[in-house]
Amino acid sequence: MNKPSIPKGTRDFSPLEMRRRNYIFDVIKKTFEGYGFNQIETPSMENLSSLTGKYGDEGDRLIFKVLNRGDKFLKAVKSVDASTSSLAALEQSLCNEGLRYDLTVPFARYVVQYQNELTFPFKRFQIQPVWRADRPQKGRYREFFQCDADIIGSDSLLNEIDFIQIISTVFNSLKINNVVIKLNNRKILSAIAELTGQPDKIIDITVAIDKLDKIGEDAVIKELIDKGLNNSSISFIKPLLSLKGDNSLILKELKKVLSSSKVGVKGVDELEFLVNYFLKYPLKDSALQLDMTLARGLNYYTGAIFEVVVDGAGIGSVSGGGRYDDLTGVFGLKNISGVGISFGADRIYDVMIENNLFPDFKKMSTQLLIVNQDVDPFELNNLANKFRLNEVVTELYPDQSKLKKQLKYANGIAVPFVLFCTDIGTELQLELKDMNSGNQEVLGFSSIVNKLKNI
Amino acid sequence: MNKPSIPKGTRDFSPLEMRRRNYIFDVIKKTFEGYGFNQIETPSMENLSSLTGKYGDEGDRLIFKVLNRGDKFLKAVKSVDASTSSLAALEQSLCNEGLRYDLTVPFARYVVQYQNELTFPFKRFQIQPVWRADRPQKGRYREFFQCDADIIGSDSLLNEIDFIQIISTVFNSLKINNVVIKLNNRKILSAIAELTGQPDKIIDITVAIDKLDKIGEDAVIKELIDKGLNNSSISFIKPLLSLKGDNSLILKELKKVLSSSKVGVKGVDELEFLVNYFLKYPLKDSALQLDMTLARGLNYYTGAIFEVVVDGAGIGSVSGGGRYDDLTGVFGLKNISGVGISFGADRIYDVMIENNLFPDFKKMSTQLLIVNQDVDPFELNNLANKFRLNEVVTELYPDQSKLKKQLKYANGIAVPFVLFCTDIGTELQLELKDMNSGNQEVLGFSSIVNKLKNI
Repeated sequence: MNKPSIPKGTRDFSPLEMRRRNYIFDVIKKTFEGYGFNQIETPSMENLSSLTGKYGDEGDRLIFKVLNRGDKFLKAVKSVDASTSSLAALEQSLCNEGLRYDLTVPFARYVVQYQNELTFPFKRFQIQPVWRADRPQKGRYREFFQCDADIIGSDSLLNEIDFIQIISTVFNSLKINNVVIKLNNRKILSAIAELTGQPDKIIDITVAIDKLDKIGEDAVIKELIDKGLNNSSISFIKPLLSLKGDNSLILKELKKVLSSSKVGVKGVDELEFLVNYFLKYPLKDSALQLDMTLARGLNYYTGAIFEVVVDGAGIGSVSGGGRYDDLTGVFGLKNISGVGISFGADRIYDVMIENNLFPDFKKMSTQLLIVNQDVDPFELNNLANKFRLNEVVTELYPDQSKLKKQLKYANGIAVPFVLFCTDIGTELQLELKDMNSGNQEVLGFSSIVNKLKNI
Repeated sequence: MNKPSIPKGTRDFSPLEMRRRNYIFDVIKKTFEGYGFNQIETPSMENLSSLTGKYGDEGDRLIFKVLNRGDKFLKAVKSVDASTSSLAALEQSLCNEGLRYDLTVPFARYVVQYQNELTFPFKRFQIQPVWRADRPQKGRYREFFQCDADIIGSDSLLNEIDFIQIISTVFNSLKINNVVIKLNNRKILSAIAELTGQPDKIIDITVAIDKLDKIGEDAVIKELIDKGLNNSSISFIKPLLSLKGDNSLILKELKKVLSSSKVGVKGVDELEFLVNYFLKYPLKDSALQLDMTLARGLNYYTGAIFEVVVDGAGIGSVSGGGRYDDLTGVFGLKNISGVGISFGADRIYDVMIENNLFPDFKKMSTQLLIVNQDVDPFELNNLANKFRLNEVVTELYPDQSKLKKQLKYANGIAVPFVLFCTDIGTELQLELKDMNSGNQEVLGFSSIVNKLKNI
């Protein structure tokens, strides 16, 4: 028989990996909660009608579809015309449901579905897996967790301040200190396109300049020319690409360059509001950096755009988000502005491993193993329960095996302390062995509890 | 546009529902951890080859299958012969993966896959959703959570004691006090079948007597006759059906009746070991009750069988489990004994709601809402952060809206305290309003923090 395996791009998580992952999730969750965000969960499966058409053709292709059951499937498969139908049409004839592709579209669906029960502005967070039938590669999985928070129903820029603070707090709590929060505004990008005189090229412009970090200025300019940007457009855009450094100077320059665009002035005002707040109340250990090339390729953003990188980690963004004015429009609820961010737990995990930032979690969590020999196992089991009542994670070795075997187990689970018990008539004598130092001493029950509570 | 919806049998969970569900999960998790069980997670999708054939034909039918992608799907759909192939064959030609149906089979797969890295006995717990394409009805969902713990690689009955204690501790912690832990042993059922002289009828016998509670003794006897049990078999089984009450008396009777069956004597010994432990160290508030009719229909059990009911709740079992000697055999790893239990979070939730056992969770978790008026919002935002640093869940209303609108929001999220701030020159004057009593008083920052920490 072949050794069993799991589908490509999916993962099992061992006890140690779980402890580390939960550590990240707990920090993110606690931070969201501190700001009044409340957790919701949505089903893993959504109706395909809710999912398709929201992520572009490429995204639609990557949605995992779930086969219809029984008669519905049989009927459809019998009428399939594989020779003439498109892949998408064939899939849709056999499937009504799919696995969620992100947490944003299910959230939009949720808000519209329960709009009459929710109090707006509505602040929710959600930590759940999502699925994408992407080609698996290092750091890219077919099942992975997203950690999203959104506030919907308010266009106040104080919400953007909250999210910038949340990002900073999360990374500070995780001791990832060299974090740069990049900030842009979609209105700036619109103004640039408008002022080139080629406003229809906004997508081409944002897609191209978004690549500046990766491919360099010359290649960006080449791509812009290839996309049909004319000389005067290029001359307008080129100096903006090199706007770097001090936020106040960038704002000053943008004010000058975009002054004749109404939307541009609005965008600069919005950025200035945020920059001013953090000049007055600086972030701890995180840098806020305006970056006019930041676009994040997501067409639903209408205001602020965030992206977070860990300086020197070289793994792309670990968090990102932005403001959208019509996320729920696709589900029939128009003109509700919202803003949100998402943390990429897998990349954060990799950064934490790389920089040795996790607390020293044990392979297994047991603190005390009671050796099962010489004494009535009922009595030892009762002793184990007494330790548990005192919040000591305790195991009694289940069999009266040879000591060697029991100690092999102790080493296997890397338990820090082992207890030997001897029946001395009226009570049990307890001898505690520190597995790291090898020291062994006879101690009372309370002393052992105190010792173990303080490790 | 139609209001969006979610697939039949799936659920969204609101903030309040999430808090209640997490409360249950946390109690279960903490209890498992206290005994040295460690959390793992497995992927939502498993290879269909890992899932099919493990749950019987009916179970196979209920597995959600995930459509293959792209060329693989296209190729298969073109060669589909819907007229001659069975439903199962058609599904398998289009799908290689399915959503997990329970946590037990993925756990068995995990143990076999990582057998060389694990230390045995291996104690794991797992809290994840599972999916079944069952007909949805009250209390039965297509996506629901299971909370499983298993110990594999030890046949010691001390493990059974641990699980009985864990069950009792979980329900005590949840304040569900009228819990009956029913206990049987598969070896008793085998012995009964053996001693009737019709050992091949063991499945028919267990299926029939398992229904005693539901359909009554007469109907069970009728079913046994229908299944071909002869008169002498019926006469042997009938008195066993009415074995009820005191565990010691039941054991005494079983010892007598099953004395000529080797497996029967072994089964009685195992039960007696457990009964004796809990006579010496009684459970708090839970009853342990031997029940010879308990079978749980799961053929992989070989020793202890547990099932937990809440007396008077009338909703079936809230937890169950048992010992199996060959769970991993289907994946090629033979002769490893294990024992495990599963908690049904959804039914426990219903019992808690019915009996009003949840703590008084708020609709939303915000403790303090700062009214946004009169004072510079930057300063108010900074004040909100100071409260957050003191672990007070704080929101600043994001807009300088009319007071009426801000208080409507306060009521909408049911926040217990609202703060009005006035700029009195050198500092802010803080006036705290208790939204329940309506009382309003001017207080210092520290007094407010202390007041809110103690609610």
